[in-house]
Amino acid sequence: MTYSCPQVRQFILNVCKQIGCTAAHADITADILMAAELRNISSHGVSRLKDYVNLWKSHRINTNPDIKIVHETLSTGVVDGDAGLGMVVGKTAMQLAISKANNAGTAWVSVRNSNHFGIAGYYAMMALEHDMIGIAMTNANPLVAPTFSVERLLGTNPIAVAIPAGKYPPFVADFATTPIARGKLDIMHKKNQKAPLGYVQNKKGEASDNPDVLTQGGAILPLGSDYLHGSHKGYCMGAIVDIFSALLSGANFGPFVPPSVAYLPFLSNTSGIGTGHFFGAMRIDAFQTTTDFKQQMDSWIETFKKAQTIEGQEKIIIPGEPEREWTSIRMREGIPIIDKVVVDLNQIADELGIANL
Amino acid sequence: MTYSCPQVRQFILNVCKQIGCTAAHADITADILMAAELRNISSHGVSRLKDYVNLWKSHRINTNPDIKIVHETLSTGVVDGDAGLGMVVGKTAMQLAISKANNAGTAWVSVRNSNHFGIAGYYAMMALEHDMIGIAMTNANPLVAPTFSVERLLGTNPIAVAIPAGKYPPFVADFATTPIARGKLDIMHKKNQKAPLGYVQNKKGEASDNPDVLTQGGAILPLGSDYLHGSHKGYCMGAIVDIFSALLSGANFGPFVPPSVAYLPFLSNTSGIGTGHFFGAMRIDAFQTTTDFKQQMDSWIETFKKAQTIEGQEKIIIPGEPEREWTSIRMREGIPIIDKVVVDLNQIADELGIANL
Repeated sequence: MTYSCPQVRQFILNVCKQIGCTAAHADITADILMAAELRNISSHGVSRLKDYVNLWKSHRINTNPDIKIVHETLSTGVVDGDAGLGMVVGKTAMQLAISKANNAGTAWVSVRNSNHFGIAGYYAMMALEHDMIGIAMTNANPLVAPTFSVERLLGTNPIAVAIPAGKYPPFVADFATTPIARGKLDIMHKKNQKAPLGYVQNKKGEASDNPDVLTQGGAILPLGSDYLHGSHKGYCMGAIVDIFSALLSGANFGPFVPPSVAYLPFLSNTSGIGTGHFFGAMRIDAFQTTTDFKQQMDSWIETFKKAQTIEGQEKIIIPGEPEREWTSIRMREGIPIIDKVVVDLNQIADELGIANL
Repeated sequence: MTYSCPQVRQFILNVCKQIGCTAAHADITADILMAAELRNISSHGVSRLKDYVNLWKSHRINTNPDIKIVHETLSTGVVDGDAGLGMVVGKTAMQLAISKANNAGTAWVSVRNSNHFGIAGYYAMMALEHDMIGIAMTNANPLVAPTFSVERLLGTNPIAVAIPAGKYPPFVADFATTPIARGKLDIMHKKNQKAPLGYVQNKKGEASDNPDVLTQGGAILPLGSDYLHGSHKGYCMGAIVDIFSALLSGANFGPFVPPSVAYLPFLSNTSGIGTGHFFGAMRIDAFQTTTDFKQQMDSWIETFKKAQTIEGQEKIIIPGEPEREWTSIRMREGIPIIDKVVVDLNQIADELGIANL
């Protein structure tokens, strides 16, 4: 069913307030979950509320966190999120990166003791209005086997980079370091479809077309799919995201990242505290005049837009374009939410004693 | 034939001095080309000297450059390489990043008016002895078609990240943002082998197994190979490297990057000056104590080393390990150089009036 944006937003606010968030923290959470819905990344949208509430019930999410800067230099900071909602911790940390970059030219903030933070692109895009390039990454619970491994040692560890342009909308890349996100495998499984080879392997590390193989000891493959096609490069990227997010902050790395759902137990082994993120902000005018840079970005975008496409393909995509198009549609037509998610959300609403969606 | 390290190094020094490099610049060039040979990345080693000499003869490389910082803040710099050898410009710029990071915690230097700089990993590794994380990337002449494009708009745009560890050797990732480097396609063509599908497309953008397809209007594919397997993510990475290297510095972007060989003409269209690079250095102790971080890196490496491999696979590779193993072998056994390259090098030697290899 389709709901209006204000309806969905109000529902998120009601849930957040009911689990103890301040109005300001509820607003942040609503902003970021709504951004995911608008950008058609519904796997990171309102459907996640159920997990967040369950994690709060099992005391793994603290809705009244005391978020602290535990170490800093001119251009760096380490933030302890006090087990807060990832959105609240993430936005606070990205704001710190932006404010430090204002002085130092660039700044980088590594975060520990956080939780699932939604879409990475939101934080990267926060830099745009300051005429900065924004960068955001996070580690995530382990589902990915490095090249030659049968063990799941890394998350889908996304990277987002937002770059301002002039007359064109910004360049916004936001991608997992794997060929496919977990959510898309779930959809294939529900539709009884096979997965294309190159997405997952079975528990022995053999190629598999079973989208449900993760429940049977299988793993998602790194970007590149197999060694012949450069999966070791995707593994490198996922590893770099993990190290910047966890080892620079003191969060859990790789296989120790806590599950982002309450029905999976907290791991008895830990290597640090909570989930880790890494944020960066670079002032454009720390390198070029903002005017010159934006003109060049426009020229870059035009060059790529005008290039000849493969027959049958409409256009060469500028990163961020599809998500902007979806945002226009969703703003106009509302947010479609699948029935199963509506049932889940209304069950939460009943438990919390708030109005159904 | 195989040559001793001192023999190859002396040959590089002789060539550099003969084309007008100072002793210091010749040393830098020799260090970086030797590092490529030792690490078994011979496509970026001594064989490149012929191109460099020819570019010097056609006045596209300036062997007596006045390398200048044209803009800077506490944590950033923009360097104009004055058309110098990429190795000389690159090392100077990375040294600037390291020195600025010493004060600011982290620092980032974007470079214009440079040339082919050899292996990105060398510059990233420069940070290690300072207990910093090093990052290096470069754009390169256009051979790669973004997803859905028939045009070659990006280079193989590599990224290198070097991270210090404690008792273990450092983590050193150094990878092109494509499934395959151009040099490996050349080798397949010479051996009359077919290329695996997923490396290249023909001039219409169709899948191709012809390793020589680049001479026929074809293109290398981004990491991920096709849209279904995430080539748009590889395209994003290549684009980010291009924008950081060229648009933050004022170098040429994408299709305007000048060829790194003299037999291809200088492009009549330019979008900036020369080739661009981007370097970063992040002090470990701007985030964590160096001791704690290195212990955690050791634990990260152990976790990945100990994980179970797919049957038939010897081990899970820690990035940088294979290149270190090659370095031991090459140090002991010398540098193998294929006959065709030896002929080329001795032709240069004859032209320059120096001793043959």
